[in-house]
Amino acid sequence: MLEIRTFETQDWAGVWSVLEPVLRAGESYPLATDISEAEARRLWIDVPAATVVAVDDQQGIVGSYYLKPNQPALGGHVCNCGYVVVAGARQQGIGGALCEHSQRLAVSLGFRAMQYNLVVATNEPAVRLWQRQGFDIVGRLPGAFRHAERGFVDAFVMYKTLR
Amino acid sequence: MLEIRTFETQDWAGVWSVLEPVLRAGESYPLATDISEAEARRLWIDVPAATVVAVDDQQGIVGSYYLKPNQPALGGHVCNCGYVVVAGARQQGIGGALCEHSQRLAVSLGFRAMQYNLVVATNEPAVRLWQRQGFDIVGRLPGAFRHAERGFVDAFVMYKTLR
Repeated sequence: MLEIRTFETQDWAGVWSVLEPVLRAGESYPLATDISEAEARRLWIDVPAATVVAVDDQQGIVGSYYLKPNQPALGGHVCNCGYVVVAGARQQGIGGALCEHSQRLAVSLGFRAMQYNLVVATNEPAVRLWQRQGFDIVGRLPGAFRHAERGFVDAFVMYKTLR
Repeated sequence: MLEIRTFETQDWAGVWSVLEPVLRAGESYPLATDISEAEARRLWIDVPAATVVAVDDQQGIVGSYYLKPNQPALGGHVCNCGYVVVAGARQQGIGGALCEHSQRLAVSLGFRAMQYNLVVATNEPAVRLWQRQGFDIVGRLPGAFRHAERGFVDAFVMYKTLR
């Protein structure tokens, strides 16, 4: 049983346990691989308009996403989200469920579109997942991501009009 | 005679006189059209890695740009710039001179590429100028900019590898 709900303060330890290895790996998010827990919390919890968690009744928190405006005022009708799913529970539909949830939440908050600014091209499962969710690759940024293992790799801008 | 040099504190009034009407118009930057001078100063001067001004020996400050990393650490080798030229001195090469200056500065600061995230499609002189400067339109964002006069219009992601 998977519950998807708004982040609550006591969820942070669980979110961080999912998020930290992803950030340390340096393969999908541009944040520094040695980012402090406090800075990660600021960016995942404090800055966004909303943060959501996926809670498995056996495993606890297995995923999370944030949602925020991608630009200020005259671009503020387009939101941006970032997602994370714990390594041991991938390919089970959690990422897709979070993405669907985020699109509904975005519409309910008045956003008209969703944009991912830096989808790492080598992160093929993510690219395929967003495409299945109706996102288009609208741009390719040559060498825009410095992958911890592979060096400079391309990244995609992906976009979906929500209404 | 046009001098292009680093912003100094006493330049702010001149920069703001160029920047304010552009922001109030709501046709090219996503910032709120009623943005305060203090917030504009924070975004144009304090946040960026560098701010530069174009000074005409008769007219004073006629243009400016900022330069900053477009993403954090693993995307921090790509910079972002924003430019402004006073309405009465456009189509005289000042924008191009600022853009060339910014590319040299970016390389000297260690950046490998430059990205514009939200070039408003209806701002055709800007699109053409960046193309002449070697920037590619790498993506089109449908309806991503809420133009003060025209409503929702498309915006381009533009990108140039510098080295």
